[in-house]
Amino acid sequence: MPVETLSVETLRWRNGKLELIDQRRLPLEFEYVACEDAAQTAAAIRDMVVRGAPAIGCTAAYGVALAALSHAHEARPAFDAALESAFQVLAASRPTAVNLFWAIDRMRQCHAQNRTVSTRTEAEALLALAQQIHSDDIDICRAIGTHGAPLIPDGARVMTHCNAGALATAGHGTALGVIRSARDAGKRISVIANETRPYLQGARLTAWEMVQENIPVTLVTDNMAGYLMQQGRVDVIVVGADRIALNGDAANKIGTYTVAVLAERHRIPFYVAAPLSTIDIGIADGGAIPIEERDASEVTGYRGVRWAPQGVNVANPAFDVTPAALITAIITEKGVLSRPDARQIRALFKN
Amino acid sequence: MPVETLSVETLRWRNGKLELIDQRRLPLEFEYVACEDAAQTAAAIRDMVVRGAPAIGCTAAYGVALAALSHAHEARPAFDAALESAFQVLAASRPTAVNLFWAIDRMRQCHAQNRTVSTRTEAEALLALAQQIHSDDIDICRAIGTHGAPLIPDGARVMTHCNAGALATAGHGTALGVIRSARDAGKRISVIANETRPYLQGARLTAWEMVQENIPVTLVTDNMAGYLMQQGRVDVIVVGADRIALNGDAANKIGTYTVAVLAERHRIPFYVAAPLSTIDIGIADGGAIPIEERDASEVTGYRGVRWAPQGVNVANPAFDVTPAALITAIITEKGVLSRPDARQIRALFKN
Repeated sequence: MPVETLSVETLRWRNGKLELIDQRRLPLEFEYVACEDAAQTAAAIRDMVVRGAPAIGCTAAYGVALAALSHAHEARPAFDAALESAFQVLAASRPTAVNLFWAIDRMRQCHAQNRTVSTRTEAEALLALAQQIHSDDIDICRAIGTHGAPLIPDGARVMTHCNAGALATAGHGTALGVIRSARDAGKRISVIANETRPYLQGARLTAWEMVQENIPVTLVTDNMAGYLMQQGRVDVIVVGADRIALNGDAANKIGTYTVAVLAERHRIPFYVAAPLSTIDIGIADGGAIPIEERDASEVTGYRGVRWAPQGVNVANPAFDVTPAALITAIITEKGVLSRPDARQIRALFKN
Repeated sequence: MPVETLSVETLRWRNGKLELIDQRRLPLEFEYVACEDAAQTAAAIRDMVVRGAPAIGCTAAYGVALAALSHAHEARPAFDAALESAFQVLAASRPTAVNLFWAIDRMRQCHAQNRTVSTRTEAEALLALAQQIHSDDIDICRAIGTHGAPLIPDGARVMTHCNAGALATAGHGTALGVIRSARDAGKRISVIANETRPYLQGARLTAWEMVQENIPVTLVTDNMAGYLMQQGRVDVIVVGADRIALNGDAANKIGTYTVAVLAERHRIPFYVAAPLSTIDIGIADGGAIPIEERDASEVTGYRGVRWAPQGVNVANPAFDVTPAALITAIITEKGVLSRPDARQIRALFKN
């Protein structure tokens, strides 16, 4: 089953391997790295070769398929043990984005349904499911874009934080998918990209995607967002999410909460664009979402360049939680939830 | 007139030259650079060898003295022309911090009062005034510290933005002066330093000063401030200022406004520590404070390292304005102004 050709192919299945754009090296270098087994795939997620909740989900699904294919010649007990090991190593790669666990769960269900077939047949079924998840993700992003585009006025200066773009998904993007779809609908759109320290996904990835698309983009440091809003230079904000609780509280890249607080003060619409696979109805509110703490070296400098003195402590939470009360609407592939709450979110999953 | 010995001597007068700690190279290298004339001094301000409103004021005063001393052998017309040129080049170095203009005005007054004496005598009077401004600045910072220390609770986790420390003044600091004085009063204090992109004064300078003083310091990226407040990990905020309008609106390093908005939401006291020389009673409110726009290269990377793609636009405002309504109090050398307003600020200048 071929996956639709895209301008930015974040991940792809080639010659029995998973290939990922190495997002650590963008925008200065554009290169694919190959994953041949589940451990390599988990390492690619942990080390942020690939990032973004939907892209992590697709990647993890392929990681399970890689484990299955490389053990397909083995007998059931060894094959099952290899799969169990793959589920565990992949689930331990990053804690916050729920799409990871959602994709692993789907692969687990497929495994449970294939216990009586040959290991080769099951491995092929697992690969087919990973490709289905991959292909669906692109369709879902396009549906999010279609639902979200009407919310973006013609001429809008759209602020976004981090990268919820093609690179954070199988393609098109969630927040940037809304922007792309609005542009494709004929609207003149310009983007303000917060650089998103410490990992600079805004400066490196969102800016790069917008330049590729010829969408005008202005890069700012994260602490300039308030000033720009104060000056009346931001019309609407669209961000992605890594996990949304049943009540609509949304975990996203660190700094998103601050942007939402500023948006409320300045009465600027604040939208979260995310697929249903990002919604964790098993968590009542955002307080229960685990927040990943990453290495101090990301904050004390950038890559090989250190600028902080020895002897400092560091905090490096990778995400924060924006309360539902600060969210104007959540844009999903099934439609727009204005002033999101548990009632609306439950209804989404009942259809 | 010797200036009191300090642990961090931001600027010093040595062998007829002004020496400045090169703050661009801290904390990795500690080195003084010498300024021999007004043009070099203006370049040091513009290029941020020295920064921080009070330190810029002291530096500019010495810049005028350097011009006077190097032209003291000349006749009046040439001497006066050299001084006028010095006033102009120094005034054009940076636009936002009003201490620069305040110091130049004091030097201008001294010049006006010395038109009938020899140029040598006037040059010595100008140097003496620069040294007085320098020496006074340390006393003023200590007085700010004394007034501010009672506002900091024992055990407080104090957030600060940018560097309003010894390095931003002639010594002791304004915001960090309050922290130093609170610690000296026996309180257990720890500091949260926002890194302060793009120029990283928090990561490089505030963190370095706190490490030197053995005050525990935690470094975070600017976009983590909201998360830490949300988690109840910030007790009080103290920042400096570059220009305060008559109504109490305060311009300070970009990102300060965002911290103030977050502080209001989380009901955390937000203090601005600044000398009277930072208050511009000629400006009714913050809307009239000029905001410096700096070079795009500060945002697209750091020093020689570029991480943003070609083709992006950049905004790089160096300051923003925090409305007086978000300021719990302004801490000056003459006392604390709670809920600052024009009435209290006018009264300060009448004593």
